[in-house]
Amino acid sequence: MRIVALAGGIGGARFLRGLKEAVAPGDEITVIGNTGDDIHLFGLKVCPDLDTVMYTLGGGIHEDQGWGRADETWSVKEEMKAYGVGPEWFGLGDRDFATHIVRTQMISAGYPLSAVTEALCDRWQPGVRLIPMSDDRVETHVRITDGQGTRAVHFQEYWVRLHAAVDAEAIIPVGADTAKPAPGVLEAVAAADVILLPPSNPVVSIGTVLAVPGIRQAVASAAAPVVGLSPIVGGAPVRGMADKVLAAVGVDTTAEAVARYYGADLLDGWLVDTSDADAVQGVEEAGIRCRAVPLMMTDVPATAAMARTALELAAEVRG
Amino acid sequence: MRIVALAGGIGGARFLRGLKEAVAPGDEITVIGNTGDDIHLFGLKVCPDLDTVMYTLGGGIHEDQGWGRADETWSVKEEMKAYGVGPEWFGLGDRDFATHIVRTQMISAGYPLSAVTEALCDRWQPGVRLIPMSDDRVETHVRITDGQGTRAVHFQEYWVRLHAAVDAEAIIPVGADTAKPAPGVLEAVAAADVILLPPSNPVVSIGTVLAVPGIRQAVASAAAPVVGLSPIVGGAPVRGMADKVLAAVGVDTTAEAVARYYGADLLDGWLVDTSDADAVQGVEEAGIRCRAVPLMMTDVPATAAMARTALELAAEVRG
Repeated sequence: MRIVALAGGIGGARFLRGLKEAVAPGDEITVIGNTGDDIHLFGLKVCPDLDTVMYTLGGGIHEDQGWGRADETWSVKEEMKAYGVGPEWFGLGDRDFATHIVRTQMISAGYPLSAVTEALCDRWQPGVRLIPMSDDRVETHVRITDGQGTRAVHFQEYWVRLHAAVDAEAIIPVGADTAKPAPGVLEAVAAADVILLPPSNPVVSIGTVLAVPGIRQAVASAAAPVVGLSPIVGGAPVRGMADKVLAAVGVDTTAEAVARYYGADLLDGWLVDTSDADAVQGVEEAGIRCRAVPLMMTDVPATAAMARTALELAAEVRG
Repeated sequence: MRIVALAGGIGGARFLRGLKEAVAPGDEITVIGNTGDDIHLFGLKVCPDLDTVMYTLGGGIHEDQGWGRADETWSVKEEMKAYGVGPEWFGLGDRDFATHIVRTQMISAGYPLSAVTEALCDRWQPGVRLIPMSDDRVETHVRITDGQGTRAVHFQEYWVRLHAAVDAEAIIPVGADTAKPAPGVLEAVAAADVILLPPSNPVVSIGTVLAVPGIRQAVASAAAPVVGLSPIVGGAPVRGMADKVLAAVGVDTTAEAVARYYGADLLDGWLVDTSDADAVQGVEEAGIRCRAVPLMMTDVPATAAMARTALELAAEVRG
């Protein structure tokens, strides 16, 4: 079976770890990773979501943190601070730096991000094929109004530095309109037996992947059933600050509203948490098959159970 | 008093630390640093000699090693190895990496190396004005013949990877012929009251500085006396493998031969070690005032004594 998953960072990566446990030997998983939160720091190209997936599935992730490397040291960051070179708010450890140095060097040598990601994964052996959504530069910016007036800041600045404490007025995936899907993305979607939307941020993670021209249409018209898992449980994001960016696109922070935001043209099935069982009817009325099951990724077995249910629902809607 | 010193790496840096102790309050030291051993590694511009001077005088040097940072960590290098990205033979620690990242970022932003060096020194406060010999790229290559045939390798590869174990057939300062002295170099030489050649490598350190068109002529024609200290003691380099590169330029590894290599047009005074007292006559016959004094930089006081003697000899030849 060929499974395609679109993924953001921590939530997506943890779901994928469960999915790997849930699939049968011989099944192939292709992950189309969000690159909208990529950022250029210290002259280096940093791809937080791709790296979180790669480190998590490859065994190098800092487990408690959910991002960055295990057994990390912070000498480079200390020195940057001593040189007065910022930003200080973005946490890049020494081991993580090495990834960005290798990536930047390869990109400078002319390799597209998809080839670089494949090369990095040669080391990490994540057990999935990880493809960035695009080789073109896309950067999600967030429009905010604060003491400095109304302005757009990089998504990482909004999320990491400002902790999404200011309202997001608009989400702008800069460059997405002219970006092309990376080689292999449309082919994987077309050849998929199942397409999964993990419980990642529907706006700035999966939404950005879908914003690359051609990808949303390919997913919506794919022969494979498309099943998503709600990142909203009990009216709040399980982790992160999705409510802030959902508000920016005029969507309520509920499991049903997110399903409707994706839309019945895209989604065939939708899983909500058992605590949101009363949302099932509304989602089904929108034309999307829905089930309420436990959706807390407390550990790998619980996550694998979620993935199995998603695959079952896919089989069910396939008929 | 305005003192100008040309300097290479470890030997030059250690001499400068003694010189700082030897001068009077208010004296100004300008260091013209060799950049011929600069190398691009991992997409970063690395300036080993400039950094050795900056770290040594700024209190950040790894004392025993003589190069690199104190309290260094090696996570980035470990990760590079795990990614299979070389070269492995060049030792870049995490703290050192930060310097190269800041430098590379500033150079990418359009700043010349001299401005970048000044910015880095803002942090280190080396107590001297450190100017690279040139803002233009100059890289010393060494012609060798080994199992792979006759070829030119970067000086760092010859020195660090091959440990100068193969004979150097020629020393080629690639780019030196079209390089221009960095802003301030010629002005500092012209305005100097004393010009010192520390016991650095006469070929690949000080020789490379002098190879930048205009610098040798400026030093030779400067109003200030020019006094050098022999890096050769008892027929062998005090440290490093200067004998190998001296042989490549047809110069014997003796204190007298090095003085004659610099030439009486350049040097007004020359210090040899007490163990080389029999060289004094030959050096003076070449038209260079010479004294034999202890030249082992065993500690800062001993080095300061050498610097004081050099300044005294300069006063003497000035007349």
